[in-house]
Amino acid sequence: MQRYILTVSCPDQPGIVHALSGGITEAKGNILESAQFSDPGTGTFTIRVLLETPQADVESLRDELSLRLARFDPVLSLRPEQQRRRVLLMVSKFDHCLVDLLYRWHLGELPVDIPLIVSNHPDLAPVAQRYGIPFIHLPVTRDTKPEAEAELVRLVAEHRVDFVVLARYMQVLSDDLCRKLSGRVINIHHSFLPGFKGAKPYHQAHDRGVKLIGATAHFVTADLDEGPIIEQDVVRVGHRHTAPELVAIGRDVERVVLARAVRLHAEDRVVLTGSRTVVFS
Amino acid sequence: MQRYILTVSCPDQPGIVHALSGGITEAKGNILESAQFSDPGTGTFTIRVLLETPQADVESLRDELSLRLARFDPVLSLRPEQQRRRVLLMVSKFDHCLVDLLYRWHLGELPVDIPLIVSNHPDLAPVAQRYGIPFIHLPVTRDTKPEAEAELVRLVAEHRVDFVVLARYMQVLSDDLCRKLSGRVINIHHSFLPGFKGAKPYHQAHDRGVKLIGATAHFVTADLDEGPIIEQDVVRVGHRHTAPELVAIGRDVERVVLARAVRLHAEDRVVLTGSRTVVFS
Amino acid sequence: MQRYILTVSCPDQPGIVHALSGGITEAKGNILESAQFSDPGTGTFTIRVLLETPQADVESLRDELSLRLARFDPVLSLRPEQQRRRVLLMVSKFDHCLVDLLYRWHLGELPVDIPLIVSNHPDLAPVAQRYGIPFIHLPVTRDTKPEAEAELVRLVAEHRVDFVVLARYMQVLSDDLCRKLSGRVINIHHSFLPGFKGAKPYHQAHDRGVKLIGATAHFVTADLDEGPIIEQDVVRVGHRHTAPELVAIGRDVERVVLARAVRLHAEDRVVLTGSRTVVFS
Amino acid sequence: MQRYILTVSCPDQPGIVHALSGGITEAKGNILESAQFSDPGTGTFTIRVLLETPQADVESLRDELSLRLARFDPVLSLRPEQQRRRVLLMVSKFDHCLVDLLYRWHLGELPVDIPLIVSNHPDLAPVAQRYGIPFIHLPVTRDTKPEAEAELVRLVAEHRVDFVVLARYMQVLSDDLCRKLSGRVINIHHSFLPGFKGAKPYHQAHDRGVKLIGATAHFVTADLDEGPIIEQDVVRVGHRHTAPELVAIGRDVERVVLARAVRLHAEDRVVLTGSRTVVFS
Repeated sequence: MQRYILTVSCPDQPGIVHALSGGITEAKGNILESAQFSDPGTGTFTIRVLLETPQADVESLRDELSLRLARFDPVLSLRPEQQRRRVLLMVSKFDHCLVDLLYRWHLGELPVDIPLIVSNHPDLAPVAQRYGIPFIHLPVTRDTKPEAEAELVRLVAEHRVDFVVLARYMQVLSDDLCRKLSGRVINIHHSFLPGFKGAKPYHQAHDRGVKLIGATAHFVTADLDEGPIIEQDVVRVGHRHTAPELVAIGRDVERVVLARAVRLHAEDRVVLTGSRTVVFS
Repeated sequence: MQRYILTVSCPDQPGIVHALSGGITEAKGNILESAQFSDPGTGTFTIRVLLETPQADVESLRDELSLRLARFDPVLSLRPEQQRRRVLLMVSKFDHCLVDLLYRWHLGELPVDIPLIVSNHPDLAPVAQRYGIPFIHLPVTRDTKPEAEAELVRLVAEHRVDFVVLARYMQVLSDDLCRKLSGRVINIHHSFLPGFKGAKPYHQAHDRGVKLIGATAHFVTADLDEGPIIEQDVVRVGHRHTAPELVAIGRDVERVVLARAVRLHAEDRVVLTGSRTVVFS
Repeated sequence: MQRYILTVSCPDQPGIVHALSGGITEAKGNILESAQFSDPGTGTFTIRVLLETPQADVESLRDELSLRLARFDPVLSLRPEQQRRRVLLMVSKFDHCLVDLLYRWHLGELPVDIPLIVSNHPDLAPVAQRYGIPFIHLPVTRDTKPEAEAELVRLVAEHRVDFVVLARYMQVLSDDLCRKLSGRVINIHHSFLPGFKGAKPYHQAHDRGVKLIGATAHFVTADLDEGPIIEQDVVRVGHRHTAPELVAIGRDVERVVLARAVRLHAEDRVVLTGSRTVVFS
Repeated sequence: MQRYILTVSCPDQPGIVHALSGGITEAKGNILESAQFSDPGTGTFTIRVLLETPQADVESLRDELSLRLARFDPVLSLRPEQQRRRVLLMVSKFDHCLVDLLYRWHLGELPVDIPLIVSNHPDLAPVAQRYGIPFIHLPVTRDTKPEAEAELVRLVAEHRVDFVVLARYMQVLSDDLCRKLSGRVINIHHSFLPGFKGAKPYHQAHDRGVKLIGATAHFVTADLDEGPIIEQDVVRVGHRHTAPELVAIGRDVERVVLARAVRLHAEDRVVLTGSRTVVFS
């Protein structure tokens, strides 16, 4: 038996599940787990299905299901569960998110392939090397940004990258790149958005005297720190913590939140509906 | 359009969802939200569906769906969303869970009907009265326990009670009653089970010096404090808290955990699979 | 033996604790619990001490301690532990925070006296009445605001109120009143500040698609929702929650956060240092 | 100016703080932060003080303070803040706690020196090597256990180790060793104690169907998994998580809880009082 992960989103109307389950039944498939949600705000139907079937040809199964759903105009994704998402990691100089993602990946907690790590600084090459992952140093200056981003797009295509993870990558992507990779770039912001957007959020948090600090993983859009949120969490802090201590405490929540978001997306559990996400956790 | 909540559980095999969605499509229904899980431990298929359809006759729809699923030998429940579960509350002398449940119910947070409150003490009659709910004082002594439990069973039947909530009811139910009402009685235990079973859990917690205390909502079985868990939560405590302060702090987590469990069950989101629960939250 | 709560704050310099403990020793007192913090940002020394002594005359003890600390120019507070802080509650139409505070107060969880409840609407008079607390309906229109606030100040003085709690009071206080009652008014804002200031924060949160919602208890200043934060907490939400459901979920975190803040302040555990608070929890 | 961390514990009685602050004042010292607690259960006075003074000779200052406190029969510890605690790490084959502790240590989050890592297996030598820390393979069989433990005690003495951290060390220490190193060995247990003591706690947790799993850092005593608790935390899980997935999820909470406990103890914030701990966090 072959296990597949299937996701469908389309404008909501009656009959989608029946058409879909008809195709699965036809393929002698069994649904092991499924979750569906119709977003009243946008009228979007979304579903994620884990199924198994003796049908080993993913193309045929995809064609069959697409055909049956054709009149609903769906965005459909079907892949064998063991064919993992391909993720490109981008970093700058802070290594805590990278170290954490690679450690989890190494342990088998993150079901992804990582063909490439790209950085605008050379500093973290040894971390990549430790895990045997190619590391490309792609410096970015104001003048070279267009070329650097073009090269990034090329690498995404060449390595058949499913999505990009900005693991504390300290460069803002151009509007043009945000559009090109729309819905395919996850960023970790080191605050509980929408509080403390922009630079030095822990120092802002310290000045404001908040009692919890947080981190937010979100899809990147042209609007800085305004993209659809995938996951957030917070941790308690107190009056005796200095801003640098908040930075240290925050590293923990950043890496956990980013790892959760990457895992959710790697398992096809995150669906974009307008400016919000449906997360089938 | 009429909205229904449907749940099905049965031994897992291929074709259940297709048969079910076929019945829904036949009734011109649309699935608004659904969640399915097949438990590998017990081989149990479980699904919860929120659907809407022009079919206003619940009996006809239930017959139709039952017929289509007959070969899977399902436990099937179908009810109009607005036909609320009927809940009997049982209390003794502590009022914090009762006060909280009734306040939430009054605000519309708990979609249940409460035909009756039963207590082995008269103390909380005024709380029931404030909300206009009948209160029955049903004292229990070692000698009268069988009669009292028989009366309780009669009340459950008479008031067409869907499930019973022990909101800090301080009597242990007999094995016989546990069997009769199996899967229909929710208890709140004032510890994070399986830690600190039995009496005075906060004093046990204080002696042990734990840094978090908790509460557990579970189905009642003949095995004391061993029933399937529905919901749990914890709260941080410290060295300066005395046992009585733990009791006070614990009240908060007890009432929140019980209210969540009651709401989950009232919305048909909890399915028993052996000694564990599937919770479609 | 008499138990006292003592707090001192002053510009930091060596010798304060020794001068203080000298006074306590002189009074044959014993320190049961103390916490001290010197804020590097403002250079403020703060301490909270729980002590017991045979000295039953609070005035004498206060004079003695003040004398010994005189050269440090302290703000000093000393009171018998059993002489509780006097709190005036203000509400509008939402009752969840009021109901919760009064229930806790009734159980003995909140060590305060509540001489008075003031509201700009008559709706919640029955809640006050249930607990036998005087309720004053003090309507506020644009024209009558100065008179209403003058009356409030008069009530605060008349009832020797230590601090005022805005338990979802839906009127903004004038800058003048904020100054007059500076450091003596606690508000609960129904968001995790600094996110979602101002009106309808849960609807803002829903639109933004956050995965956690929160509440913030803070001192009121002329800067709306910018006052020093005392306590915050959050609760997890998901894509299926509508804005009205966020409102319901948020009630839980609002009432818990406000109750914690009121208790902390009632126990003299909160010290203002500039725009931040020291909380000796 | 020199910064010192001072802790004192002794039977409670009046005058301790005054005697102590007298010594500090005499040394022209200033208390930057202090926390005191008198445990009513055991009648133990405990205090932790961060102070600064021009007195650079730690021996003299310790003698002076000890003299002043002599009549209270105190356990007193005084050290320059920058003279870090020396910690010996023990591991077996699981590396997640070790990797996490070393990464935090490398970043400066854990203010300790790590002279040595000891393991009963050779597997994790490369991790130690990466950070340039000596790694000793000390195999333990039933027959060699006494010799191995004697060697461990020798290493603790030779390297002037302040405390030992069992970072998922899978050997039970003998009663004799527990006594010798009493109050100086921290273990991480992979459950929320007192639930699920002993082996395979995640599998026990899965069978029981708990909705939260946890980890507990505690001092080691001869009573397995019964030692005084330093820190605990939990994380939410659900019906779809298998036992191996609980193991993976649990790694996160294990490493965070252990790192917090090690940091608290490294900063002299943990005081043993009987079977419980006072934690000045």
